[in-house]
Amino acid sequence: MPAVMSDAQRDRDARESVFQAEYPRYLDEWMQFLSFPSVSAAPEFQADCRACADWLAAHLQHIGMASQVLESPAEPIVLAHRGGLPSHPAVLVYGHYDVQPAAPEDAWKSPPFQPELRGGRLYARGAEDNKGQLFYVLKAVETLIRQKALRCPLYVLIEGGEESGSSGLKSLLPQLRRRLRSDVLIVTDTQTVNSGAPTLIMGLRGIVHLEACLRGPHRDLHSGVHGGVAPNPASALAAMVAALHDADGRIAIPGLYEGVRPPTRRERQLMRTGATGAEAYRAATGVSPAGGERAFPPEERAGFRPSLDVNGLFAGYTGKGIKTIIPATARVKLTARLVAGQDPQTCLNRICEHLRSLAPPELTLDIVDRGVGGAALRLRPDSALIRRAADILQELTGKETVFLWEGASIPIVAELAAATGAEPLLAGFGHEDDNIHAPNESFSIDQFRQGYLYAARLLASF
Amino acid sequence: MPAVMSDAQRDRDARESVFQAEYPRYLDEWMQFLSFPSVSAAPEFQADCRACADWLAAHLQHIGMASQVLESPAEPIVLAHRGGLPSHPAVLVYGHYDVQPAAPEDAWKSPPFQPELRGGRLYARGAEDNKGQLFYVLKAVETLIRQKALRCPLYVLIEGGEESGSSGLKSLLPQLRRRLRSDVLIVTDTQTVNSGAPTLIMGLRGIVHLEACLRGPHRDLHSGVHGGVAPNPASALAAMVAALHDADGRIAIPGLYEGVRPPTRRERQLMRTGATGAEAYRAATGVSPAGGERAFPPEERAGFRPSLDVNGLFAGYTGKGIKTIIPATARVKLTARLVAGQDPQTCLNRICEHLRSLAPPELTLDIVDRGVGGAALRLRPDSALIRRAADILQELTGKETVFLWEGASIPIVAELAAATGAEPLLAGFGHEDDNIHAPNESFSIDQFRQGYLYAARLLASF
Repeated sequence: MPAVMSDAQRDRDARESVFQAEYPRYLDEWMQFLSFPSVSAAPEFQADCRACADWLAAHLQHIGMASQVLESPAEPIVLAHRGGLPSHPAVLVYGHYDVQPAAPEDAWKSPPFQPELRGGRLYARGAEDNKGQLFYVLKAVETLIRQKALRCPLYVLIEGGEESGSSGLKSLLPQLRRRLRSDVLIVTDTQTVNSGAPTLIMGLRGIVHLEACLRGPHRDLHSGVHGGVAPNPASALAAMVAALHDADGRIAIPGLYEGVRPPTRRERQLMRTGATGAEAYRAATGVSPAGGERAFPPEERAGFRPSLDVNGLFAGYTGKGIKTIIPATARVKLTARLVAGQDPQTCLNRICEHLRSLAPPELTLDIVDRGVGGAALRLRPDSALIRRAADILQELTGKETVFLWEGASIPIVAELAAATGAEPLLAGFGHEDDNIHAPNESFSIDQFRQGYLYAARLLASF
Repeated sequence: MPAVMSDAQRDRDARESVFQAEYPRYLDEWMQFLSFPSVSAAPEFQADCRACADWLAAHLQHIGMASQVLESPAEPIVLAHRGGLPSHPAVLVYGHYDVQPAAPEDAWKSPPFQPELRGGRLYARGAEDNKGQLFYVLKAVETLIRQKALRCPLYVLIEGGEESGSSGLKSLLPQLRRRLRSDVLIVTDTQTVNSGAPTLIMGLRGIVHLEACLRGPHRDLHSGVHGGVAPNPASALAAMVAALHDADGRIAIPGLYEGVRPPTRRERQLMRTGATGAEAYRAATGVSPAGGERAFPPEERAGFRPSLDVNGLFAGYTGKGIKTIIPATARVKLTARLVAGQDPQTCLNRICEHLRSLAPPELTLDIVDRGVGGAALRLRPDSALIRRAADILQELTGKETVFLWEGASIPIVAELAAATGAEPLLAGFGHEDDNIHAPNESFSIDQFRQGYLYAARLLASF
């Protein structure tokens, strides 16, 4: 036992005690929060989204923040505020109360909106994403307010449309930007690396999407009568899709790497902390990390390189048995992940133009859907904020913090950072096996506890 | 008016009179035949298939043939026989009483199994394929028997599984081959060229099929986290499918053109009688005849060259909107059409081997289904039988007979010809706009009349 106890240790121990004393109540409230089927993707849950927003606003009021429900063109948004010392940095916490659909419901061991505690884990849709990871922040705020340990001005912004593209929040941002002006943007909607080591997300990729339809004959043709005579849209689309990458796995679209900057020496060094070995990758996914550009290591490909993936491909007959047709149409759904320095709209245009150039003249290519999800984010690993968070995480867990340039996208984060002027800080306690977006989503009491301690320590530090 | 009337003209006029007098009854019987939902593809119609076979056997008995219903491992088979003069060639008529499923039923203007006469056309599933084109033969047989004009020994073989691969008949062929030994095999399950000119089918292609599944991650992966890291089975399968043809549209599979013989001078000359111009092709299908091997004209590609077509292609998310996944698997359904000189099993093996060689090592290729439909048929255009049929058709219609090397397959024909020793004769009166295999199938009274006159004149000639 060390002879001298540091302030940090004392704080941590004190908050551990609060957590031990209070967590039955936390759990009870968290279960109430989870019982709202606040699915943003389906219109039949609109009333549930509103009820959830109302419950949240009341809860924020109850813990000591001035809260309100803002109307948006989509789901309502909850905004809470508590004034602080003007000399302290203003902090904005972002989260979302909407959840993914629960389908297929019969794959759940307990009903998705009747939270159930089993083996130290709470099972429910949203248990982690994002209700669990948001609620530990709210409980940390509650503790600090009670302890009069919250000094910074604090905003809590909780949207109801993150799983559906954040359209409501995006449309409100222009009018909220001045009101939400802040220094730090805290996001806990992230996971740790598989080892469980605390993980700071240092980058997110941007995303654009499109769906293209290659049209041939005006109806499916008999593949006997017309085989070798009529052009086959399925074969032609396959050739187009194949031509989107070269033999080295590089995206073969002119200009698509414009603006892509390699990692700095420091980034490259830190990037290696988040590397997964090929064997561990195969164990987790069933495949070797052999996709994408052969010239780069997997962690660089995910974090610092754009990628282009087929999400769906369909043509002709897909049922049982044989149907001897030349399909009238063939379709592909594509998403590209983009990195800092790339303009999403320009990239999307280039992909569409290139697809058009690949389409054979005897067939017709329609881009039936296209859109920009959001731009990429690349944070500075040596900023004071990042260093502070890394220290807190390390202190809290006793494990070295991992710096991860994430392949995924949270499009709203870059927009929110740009609108409010805040520096984003992304760290959460989700794990791969929490099954977010899948049946039997869960979050453990221990993950919740870690998140609570991290949020309390971090918020108290401003 | 010509001064002298030929025998053929006299016969034709006599039969025209019979048809005019009898066709209300023919129509009534034909409608009874069409009212059986004898769908071979779906087990729920099993009893209807049997009832249809029983009705047919009784009908054949009624018109003067000794008939029986043969059990097979699939649908029952109807076989009828009438002895003739042993010095005359034995004739075998082949047809099928089973029909394609009627789905989608709500696209029909009148119920598919309640035949309705509208504007000189009878609308019902099977109106053409093959009940209509079979029934005019039976009515011709009936007329000749009544007129004592049928001299040849005659067999009528009607199966109930043609639309489902003829498995029942195929399994019975070894035991039937001696009994059905004959000289001529009459098949009317074919169509004319679009101009309506009488059409002799001089060739049919063989067919093999396969379905392959390319497996990657053990579940769909998040395309953000894993994009550019995990190999994407949909992109990889697209590249494999693209590699099945070269830039000139030639099948790029080693050995796949082995045994393919070019048309003879005579075949090439006759083949041109069946050529469709590019403009007419486009009007009929919506595409130019720009598929397959650029080095050959369309009619040669369809009739004398093998082809390989994607009938279905599917991977990942195919619903509305976006789902950001790397699909766990990707599937393709392929059929190859083969020509005389190619062994179907060898070709199928070569296609499968080549697919395996194209699969990237980090993914797994499974051939989940594969099979041989049947071998190709290539008839001799200068045989006495073909010349006789061409003359009859020309005399009957006043139009020059077209010789067509068909791209499609009727796999049972080659097997039946091989088993019985008969020379096939394929001519029918179907039209493209009869909508076979589609909603609102129909066959006109005039097509039925032409078929009746052709069958009567042909059968009387043996």
